[in-house]
Amino acid sequence: MDDVDIAGGIQRALSGFLDRQEQRLAAIGPELTEQVRAARDATSGGKRLRPSFCYWGFRAAGGDPALPILPAAASLEMLHVSALVHDDVMDSSDVRRGQPAAHRRFEALQRERSDKTGHGGDPVGFGVGAAILLGDLCLIWADELLHTSGFDAAALARAEQYFDAVRVEVTAGQYLDLVAQASGESDMDLALRVLRYKSATYTVERPLHIGAALAGGDDRLISSLSGYGVPLGEAFQLRDDLLGVFGDPALTGKPAGDDLREGKRTVLIAYAVDHASEIQLTEFNRLFGRPDLDDDEIQLLREILQDSRAVQACEELITDRTEDALDALDRAELADDTDDTARKALNDLAIAATSRVV
Amino acid sequence: MDDVDIAGGIQRALSGFLDRQEQRLAAIGPELTEQVRAARDATSGGKRLRPSFCYWGFRAAGGDPALPILPAAASLEMLHVSALVHDDVMDSSDVRRGQPAAHRRFEALQRERSDKTGHGGDPVGFGVGAAILLGDLCLIWADELLHTSGFDAAALARAEQYFDAVRVEVTAGQYLDLVAQASGESDMDLALRVLRYKSATYTVERPLHIGAALAGGDDRLISSLSGYGVPLGEAFQLRDDLLGVFGDPALTGKPAGDDLREGKRTVLIAYAVDHASEIQLTEFNRLFGRPDLDDDEIQLLREILQDSRAVQACEELITDRTEDALDALDRAELADDTDDTARKALNDLAIAATSRVV
Repeated sequence: MDDVDIAGGIQRALSGFLDRQEQRLAAIGPELTEQVRAARDATSGGKRLRPSFCYWGFRAAGGDPALPILPAAASLEMLHVSALVHDDVMDSSDVRRGQPAAHRRFEALQRERSDKTGHGGDPVGFGVGAAILLGDLCLIWADELLHTSGFDAAALARAEQYFDAVRVEVTAGQYLDLVAQASGESDMDLALRVLRYKSATYTVERPLHIGAALAGGDDRLISSLSGYGVPLGEAFQLRDDLLGVFGDPALTGKPAGDDLREGKRTVLIAYAVDHASEIQLTEFNRLFGRPDLDDDEIQLLREILQDSRAVQACEELITDRTEDALDALDRAELADDTDDTARKALNDLAIAATSRVV
Repeated sequence: MDDVDIAGGIQRALSGFLDRQEQRLAAIGPELTEQVRAARDATSGGKRLRPSFCYWGFRAAGGDPALPILPAAASLEMLHVSALVHDDVMDSSDVRRGQPAAHRRFEALQRERSDKTGHGGDPVGFGVGAAILLGDLCLIWADELLHTSGFDAAALARAEQYFDAVRVEVTAGQYLDLVAQASGESDMDLALRVLRYKSATYTVERPLHIGAALAGGDDRLISSLSGYGVPLGEAFQLRDDLLGVFGDPALTGKPAGDDLREGKRTVLIAYAVDHASEIQLTEFNRLFGRPDLDDDEIQLLREILQDSRAVQACEELITDRTEDALDALDRAELADDTDDTARKALNDLAIAATSRVV
């Protein structure tokens, strides 16, 4: 990987953009500072995976690094934050990246205000409403970031079809996830579709496409990038699902076993339900999705996931999918094949996105 | 007004667009049909005010009616539906246009599914989550409708700045509204800013700007349209606030006095609080914003609004603002001044948007 500072460039693009938005919103009212501040915190940190794939998709298609690809790629981080903020409202998650989730942050703000004035409305309702609006702002801003990035109209028109696709796909994937959680059943087919649309295409394939389209990559290149991006995106999300159950809270920024308390119907869970013994299944159904699970109960669920070989099956899937991705990358004819910079970077990203430590 | 069928054209554009989205989403899963169906119902009906202003802004700037202005204008209806769906979640409103609000519709769907399978998650949570996602989809689709409408890249680039502005303004206005409701106090300055950003610029001024920009209207024309659009938008929302308290449920599609139960801190309410007697104010504070208000209590609140002259003040404001708008329209140099079609249509729209009957 060459020494381009993707994380730094993305951070500068986001900060500069939010500076401009803050000025614009100040004309509407000082209250809006609270929204911009929340957006700043929500867009700082994170692994910048989606912008990185966008950047390397651009380079793989022969894009000129002097063009404003990092500001354009930052739109994917803004889109991601929008999805996270709304997701946390829907899941009633309290914590995101080790900090209070956006709706909890606004709830605390309202509680503080009420305490000061001695009256005022329901802080929980305020928190949810304000977080819905923050997610809306980030969704709008994602689009504005892309089309004000500085690319010409022709490049933007090429990228737009993929940007439209990814926004709809991730929202549709979220809906499938909601249906899966609400069903109270595990269904491998549905879990696989959630994996694909809520996360895989959105994290890897579409960011690559958007970058490649901005560079003017042709259909063959776009298709090669899918060969790498789709299996890698799935491997990434399978890893994320394992970390949601077994990950170290210090690294994931989420409480231990949070996905078990939320009752997330992932591929891991669907596999366990399909392969658990009758006794394991009874125990599993008794505990899974209970918000008040204690450490022992979490440990018990983890053991069922191990003993039913669901963990092993996921690890094998991760290995297979990552290998498929790397094979496809090897075979792909990239536009910068003279020095293989993009290929090497995409190779490293595949390892980073699927490794056992976040 | 010439005999262009704006409502019909908007309906066709929305239906055709949702047909294409339905096909696209079917590839992700049959579950998504529920979202498209909800979007179809949410985008049918309504007065099509925003697309109408967009259309006549386009014509006022000399735009060729053979261009795809109705599909482009339909993006504003889609944006409006996004705002309504999220607004109903934030306000916990049960009814919209005489039908269950989107979150209630999804809640009922989940209840039905749970009854059938005998198990399943919380219908209320599912309803809220699904409605947040429906609003997200409509927000994304608003943008896609505009940039796939068929206008060339230069026209779209001109319109985009106004489209960016209106999306951010309406979201910022919603946040001001949330802050106003949560404050538990009435504040005329805040109520006026909510009036302006949550509704006025978004309903009239920006749709005119987007239409004019698509037609290539110059800065002077854009500014003339603001002279008409800003006061008219305010008059429109003041009328809407009065209808929210005094309107006939059969016409408003909302239960009688719904805004009083929700505790909406409108200009009408701020005026009443500023001018009520001490006895009226005590009574007002005891009742306003209580979700369980009965008919007699609603009637009592209405009398306080009448007796404090808040209603009269709002009626006078509506008259003044509408006159200001019509004066500005008279003075404006429109691009189709040969036959005055746009001027007449905008004149009629001003009357329709501010009259006592919806």
